[in-house]
Amino acid sequence: MPDEPRILPTVTTPRDLRRLKPAQLDALAAEIRDFLVTEVSKTGGHLGPNLGVVELTIALHRVFSSPTDRLVFDTGHQAYVHKLLTGRQDFSRLRGRGGLSGYPSRAESDHDVVENSHASAALSWADGIARANQVAGLRDRHVVAVVGDGALTGGMAWEALNNISSGQDRRLVVVVNDNGRSYSPTIGGLAQQLDTLRTTQSYERVLALGKATLQRGGPPGRFAYDALHGLKKGLKDVARPQGLFEDLGIKYVGPVDGHDRVMVEHALRRAKAFDGPVIVHVITEKGRGYTPAEEDVADRFHAVGKIHPETGLPVAPSRFGWTAVFADEIVAIARQRSDVVGVTAAMLHPVGLAPMAEEFPDRVFDVGIAEQHAVTSAAGMAFAGLHPVIGLYATFLGRGFDQLLMDVGLHKAGVTFVLDRAGLTGEDGASHNGMWDIAMTSIVPGLRLAAPRDETTLREELREAVAVDDAPTVLRYPKGALPEALPAVQRVGGAYGPDVLARHAGDGGARVLVVGVGAFAACAVEVGERLAQHGIGGTVVDPRWVLPVGSELLELAQGHDLVVTVEDGLVTGGAGSHLRDALAAAGTHVPVQSHGIPRTYLEHASRAELVAELGLRPADVAREAASAVAHLTGATEPATIDR
Amino acid sequence: MPDEPRILPTVTTPRDLRRLKPAQLDALAAEIRDFLVTEVSKTGGHLGPNLGVVELTIALHRVFSSPTDRLVFDTGHQAYVHKLLTGRQDFSRLRGRGGLSGYPSRAESDHDVVENSHASAALSWADGIARANQVAGLRDRHVVAVVGDGALTGGMAWEALNNISSGQDRRLVVVVNDNGRSYSPTIGGLAQQLDTLRTTQSYERVLALGKATLQRGGPPGRFAYDALHGLKKGLKDVARPQGLFEDLGIKYVGPVDGHDRVMVEHALRRAKAFDGPVIVHVITEKGRGYTPAEEDVADRFHAVGKIHPETGLPVAPSRFGWTAVFADEIVAIARQRSDVVGVTAAMLHPVGLAPMAEEFPDRVFDVGIAEQHAVTSAAGMAFAGLHPVIGLYATFLGRGFDQLLMDVGLHKAGVTFVLDRAGLTGEDGASHNGMWDIAMTSIVPGLRLAAPRDETTLREELREAVAVDDAPTVLRYPKGALPEALPAVQRVGGAYGPDVLARHAGDGGARVLVVGVGAFAACAVEVGERLAQHGIGGTVVDPRWVLPVGSELLELAQGHDLVVTVEDGLVTGGAGSHLRDALAAAGTHVPVQSHGIPRTYLEHASRAELVAELGLRPADVAREAASAVAHLTGATEPATIDR
Repeated sequence: MPDEPRILPTVTTPRDLRRLKPAQLDALAAEIRDFLVTEVSKTGGHLGPNLGVVELTIALHRVFSSPTDRLVFDTGHQAYVHKLLTGRQDFSRLRGRGGLSGYPSRAESDHDVVENSHASAALSWADGIARANQVAGLRDRHVVAVVGDGALTGGMAWEALNNISSGQDRRLVVVVNDNGRSYSPTIGGLAQQLDTLRTTQSYERVLALGKATLQRGGPPGRFAYDALHGLKKGLKDVARPQGLFEDLGIKYVGPVDGHDRVMVEHALRRAKAFDGPVIVHVITEKGRGYTPAEEDVADRFHAVGKIHPETGLPVAPSRFGWTAVFADEIVAIARQRSDVVGVTAAMLHPVGLAPMAEEFPDRVFDVGIAEQHAVTSAAGMAFAGLHPVIGLYATFLGRGFDQLLMDVGLHKAGVTFVLDRAGLTGEDGASHNGMWDIAMTSIVPGLRLAAPRDETTLREELREAVAVDDAPTVLRYPKGALPEALPAVQRVGGAYGPDVLARHAGDGGARVLVVGVGAFAACAVEVGERLAQHGIGGTVVDPRWVLPVGSELLELAQGHDLVVTVEDGLVTGGAGSHLRDALAAAGTHVPVQSHGIPRTYLEHASRAELVAELGLRPADVAREAASAVAHLTGATEPATIDR
Repeated sequence: MPDEPRILPTVTTPRDLRRLKPAQLDALAAEIRDFLVTEVSKTGGHLGPNLGVVELTIALHRVFSSPTDRLVFDTGHQAYVHKLLTGRQDFSRLRGRGGLSGYPSRAESDHDVVENSHASAALSWADGIARANQVAGLRDRHVVAVVGDGALTGGMAWEALNNISSGQDRRLVVVVNDNGRSYSPTIGGLAQQLDTLRTTQSYERVLALGKATLQRGGPPGRFAYDALHGLKKGLKDVARPQGLFEDLGIKYVGPVDGHDRVMVEHALRRAKAFDGPVIVHVITEKGRGYTPAEEDVADRFHAVGKIHPETGLPVAPSRFGWTAVFADEIVAIARQRSDVVGVTAAMLHPVGLAPMAEEFPDRVFDVGIAEQHAVTSAAGMAFAGLHPVIGLYATFLGRGFDQLLMDVGLHKAGVTFVLDRAGLTGEDGASHNGMWDIAMTSIVPGLRLAAPRDETTLREELREAVAVDDAPTVLRYPKGALPEALPAVQRVGGAYGPDVLARHAGDGGARVLVVGVGAFAACAVEVGERLAQHGIGGTVVDPRWVLPVGSELLELAQGHDLVVTVEDGLVTGGAGSHLRDALAAAGTHVPVQSHGIPRTYLEHASRAELVAELGLRPADVAREAASAVAHLTGATEPATIDR
């Protein structure tokens, strides 16, 4: 382990950085790396991206004056160093309830701007802020957007660049933090263009020299830096790799070795001195300075669970149960059906399409961070005879909503969306919770959505989904480990019908239908048991296909006195709400008590904490249900159903 | 008037084009122009864009073999010539029920692919089809996307280009139909880049020469063409204006004079012969060949109502009532509040922000066809102290949904969305109906949505909206003329409370609360009157602020025996559905009968036809309401409420 940090604790505001001498700054960078490796190993978090931006973040805070100048981090998961330099050095509860957010947070600091973790948005934020500064006549304020190379594949970034280029008198600096991979290898013509900018042979040699200097032990001295600078400056003039960006009319500075603090500062100062928009192209290495991360080619260090800081191995074996089952089943399907193809938006590994890509490299398409294109190109594939299966995190489907509605839905395209990390995800905070999907997709005419409850139903419903060739289908399942198998008592109706999970006789009073959506089927079973213990009979059902509301479920509901639904999606527009609407449309008014997530943004916390706070534990739901039964029958509430 | 068409009627499939001699093809082009001017003048439609693509479309169908090869038209409103050349020459009921759609329609023809009218999608469709062809080993099939220059400002186009560039062995041709304006002048760095490609002085001279030749009367002879070709070819080699596209690794051919049929064919044949993706840059003039359109600088000929074919003047004065009132009021607000700015996505005139832009040119931002950027940059502006008002067609908000949810909503940004053409729009078909907005925006925490019912409430609710600085606000109103003023009997509760429009005593039986959303307030009033005529008393209310459901409305509902809601939005997730949910959440179960648009895509028809078919006329709603009352009270349905 390294020595105790000595400089980091003395930095409480970015101003403190400006008084540090070069050697102290280099020591600070080393301290920050040690801190990150040690602390993030304990809590889990985005280690690799933050190790890559240590020098860059120090330089940003020395050159620009946050919060008067604004630093906008795209995706936000690389803001740990920024947090350390702006007075936030207690990482002990990082991403946990009451601890620091894993993303910028306005509640934490005036230095934070954007909390959203969806990629490619920072340029638009920065353009908006710069326009506002212009309207207000604040000509000396700068706005800096820090964006990864991968995020440039997103359409938002293009829309923003096109606008930024039209604001030649706005003070806006775009730092392209180029590690050549984003989540996974960057895709397409843009990547080639960045490659051209990045990998002139001469530049590579300089970068290698820089590395060698660094690895010889400790930071290189002033002389070495100056020599490198001179060399690079000359090379840049020879190489002139500006290409794309200058075509758009945006001044380009770079490429710059992002781990060469002096060079980065120099580039940023040049950009700051310029009157209009500038792109600074910085080359960094994800995981820089941490050997296990540097050697990890599969990018598993993008976000880590708790790991051992020296070996880089997980402290406890990770269980990506849902994803692994999908990965296995889609390969089996692909072997049987040559028309099934996979589509992913820069998430090949995380969504479980990698094994299929390995076996069928020509049938899995990674389109980059480009959900719009993923969805509409899938509509095109379906038109031409394929059945695409798009793997996405649930929270990112919003980026392709219009395309789902107007390209896939309108054209009755047989496209299957597999939404991983649906519902509550917890630690990654508001913008990572995949809680909007049911409400959002329920708008789309013809769309069918299934929520598997365990391994068996995931395999089964995936096969049912890819069998639908004239409408969009959606599968949604949560993050985390698979629950225990939960066999059905009876399948009601046809192949797409619901599963009855339990029946309870009760004492002859009001009967309750408990509807458990997806992973909350287990909760529903327990609710049914708790109610039965108090003499309240009825049925527990997993609708399996949640949208549209099936006639079997409707009939089941009509045969009960109260319906209780539980789901980890938005309660407004959720499965319960749709069942209530369907009952009303049928002219029957069986009351529906729906449990889910209220229309609010959820702070970071563990999934279990959120489930408890939202009243979604079986005891909570049973208590509320019993209360409603009491209300219906005029009885008093049973006091024995505990929270 | 020109002579009777002689060649057009003989073209029943694209194959027929291939037997025509050059002079016949030129005559055909002239016939098509005459046909369009004459026919579209009668029905209304997109005249200008179609006049611009006559030669291009003829050339496309001569060079490529649709439907084996696939022609994908972006936005689709420029497909009239394509329809004429693929056996559809009865334009008498264009855009009307039972007549031809104003867009491609798979139901009409095997030659049609994409029905969606939202811009920038064609490249993704084409990429998907080309990938599918590749998977199927169909190497000889070509896919051609025809996209306007304006659509290239959309992020989807960038995502697609980046992917297309990575498919060097896919046979995909992108025709950039560049008229330099899209809906309005194209914005940003891309426009400059296209300008560079387009307007080298030498090229302009050639274009002018081509024009002069054309204008001297009739088509130029073979010799003139060849001379021009040689000249242009030489110039192209000198100018090398490929820039942007070749940076991305996509072969570039052009620019080509899009009204020079021979040259366009030549360019397309070159593109077809190439093995990988190619961009063909074609310069056209919107409204080409029709003098009133050519002279119209404000682009009002993009889409026309019924016009006199010779003067180009509207047959009846257009009434854009809602838009005009917004335009007037936002200027008044802007005069009082220097922090209010306007944002539009290439729709400055259609959404009514042009007068504000005229008076406050530095405070209205047209970002191009870039809804994502419009929304997120507005969040940035709000963060930096402005209050942006984004004017959009309701149907296009889907493109910015993720940004509304994750940038504006999550950050509690005071941004006002003004959704024009909300609800049923009719003639423009499925993808133009603005019927998804309430269901979609209802997902966003904190968001407030108002639906004004007349001029007074539009002005009032706009002012209420821009007064909210800690949450997104939405105003939505329909296309068409303003209805009569509908004064309130009473404002219930505070400033954001609902308006009671009528109270009816009734005969002492069940009482009905009739809720009319926005322009359907007038319908609600009539429903209330019809019910009262049959002894059914109650209250008619305009909630004004539809989302979230207000406590005043909830209390009103709880004071009645039945609630009937009527709106021209999706009934699922609409105002009625939310009121029903709110009542259930409050533990009360007053039945809610909601009238609106079912979850389906609506074929093109007039608004009145759709209202009738959907059962949204006052008589329909009153009849259903009376039936529900009868059901509640056990009485038989009153037979006297006619449809």
